[in-house]
Amino acid sequence: MSTSILPPLEPTDRTRVTRGRNRAVTDRSALFALLDDALIAHLGIQVGEHPLVLPTAFAVDPDGPDECGTLYLHGSVAARWLRGSIGATVCVTVTELDGLVAGRSAFHHSMNYRSAVVIGPARLVEDPEERQHALDLIVDHMIPGRTTTLRPSTRKELAATAVLAVPLIEASMKERAGDPVDEPSDVEDGVWGGHVPVRRVFDAPVPAADNHRGLDVPLAVASVASAAAVSAAGSAAL
Amino acid sequence: MSTSILPPLEPTDRTRVTRGRNRAVTDRSALFALLDDALIAHLGIQVGEHPLVLPTAFAVDPDGPDECGTLYLHGSVAARWLRGSIGATVCVTVTELDGLVAGRSAFHHSMNYRSAVVIGPARLVEDPEERQHALDLIVDHMIPGRTTTLRPSTRKELAATAVLAVPLIEASMKERAGDPVDEPSDVEDGVWGGHVPVRRVFDAPVPAADNHRGLDVPLAVASVASAAAVSAAGSAAL
Repeated sequence: MSTSILPPLEPTDRTRVTRGRNRAVTDRSALFALLDDALIAHLGIQVGEHPLVLPTAFAVDPDGPDECGTLYLHGSVAARWLRGSIGATVCVTVTELDGLVAGRSAFHHSMNYRSAVVIGPARLVEDPEERQHALDLIVDHMIPGRTTTLRPSTRKELAATAVLAVPLIEASMKERAGDPVDEPSDVEDGVWGGHVPVRRVFDAPVPAADNHRGLDVPLAVASVASAAAVSAAGSAAL
Repeated sequence: MSTSILPPLEPTDRTRVTRGRNRAVTDRSALFALLDDALIAHLGIQVGEHPLVLPTAFAVDPDGPDECGTLYLHGSVAARWLRGSIGATVCVTVTELDGLVAGRSAFHHSMNYRSAVVIGPARLVEDPEERQHALDLIVDHMIPGRTTTLRPSTRKELAATAVLAVPLIEASMKERAGDPVDEPSDVEDGVWGGHVPVRRVFDAPVPAADNHRGLDVPLAVASVASAAAVSAAGSAAL
């Protein structure tokens, strides 16, 4: 991704990391790497008197029309949350869990993670080309290369889908990795400390029950799964 | 968990699933199972004029003091977000990604997932016993059985930690699983459809660099990792 010319993350009062400042990340390429790894964003909007947080697919265009790049979300044009957030300031948070941190005391238990918080105005994407591009990005973010293997979306499908854009200007990122940070006396006492790495795996693709007989798993779909899972899928297809 | 006597999930206007009603789950035991599986919650609060969504550890006590059970979050007493949410209505969303759904068209791509949305007043837990219990639950939710192997928290540690409780009364849950739902014409055209299962794995525990020599990985920590990973840890320790 062409992120090299982007400025470092410069938090505003709204995105400044106020706790655990040592965990703040100011490298914009780390932000893009996280947004690339993660599959789900949590969108926070204000609904009447209370906040509402909804999980959603997303994609990023580092070269999108907004300064510092554009984050895209989509939903049904009939979705209440989507209508309510157009023009409003929203918060999009993306988190990847990387590990469990077993400290030598309850107090020093933690998690290893990367998280990004993006705050900005939600713009309804009205330009047909940008909308089509954003929808392709969202599908290809899940399954890279998938859209080129599919028929174009129909006008009816496009009309049923709304796309929101949030600029990546106001973003902050936090990261924690590695060992627990414990009280020296607990280390001295010989209590075991450490961490348990956590990662996501993709298993072998499962063909739909209504597939035509003998269809091969498309390369784009097969490539998502881990090497082991793909090999298992190959066997299962025999 | 003693959830059998709890009422089914009865959404209010705030938590009603308005899109994809066929995906709404009304079985409270499914909610507790999801909250048991998930390790991170996304907490939505209102900060000034905008929503803020933060990832956080959590735990649930189905027999907690609140009707339908209590969800606990914790943070530093100095955390701005935590101070700001005491007494306010917050939204806690918990999502587990279970798969990528490769439809036969871009429009019918989706994800398999389980998600819960809990909306309610955030109560600062002031009772020392409830607070200690909640903190133990949060550690044991990450690493079951860990707290019984640790020294008790000090008064200073407890004083530095704030615990928030959110009642599980107002909760909704959505779930999607299995195959894509496609246009019959795309199925007819012989396009491959299916899904790619996604799951979380825990790798072998990594001892902290400052551990005493020869310490065994505690059983509670080893039990988190998958059988394969634990066996690898055993070999690595030799």
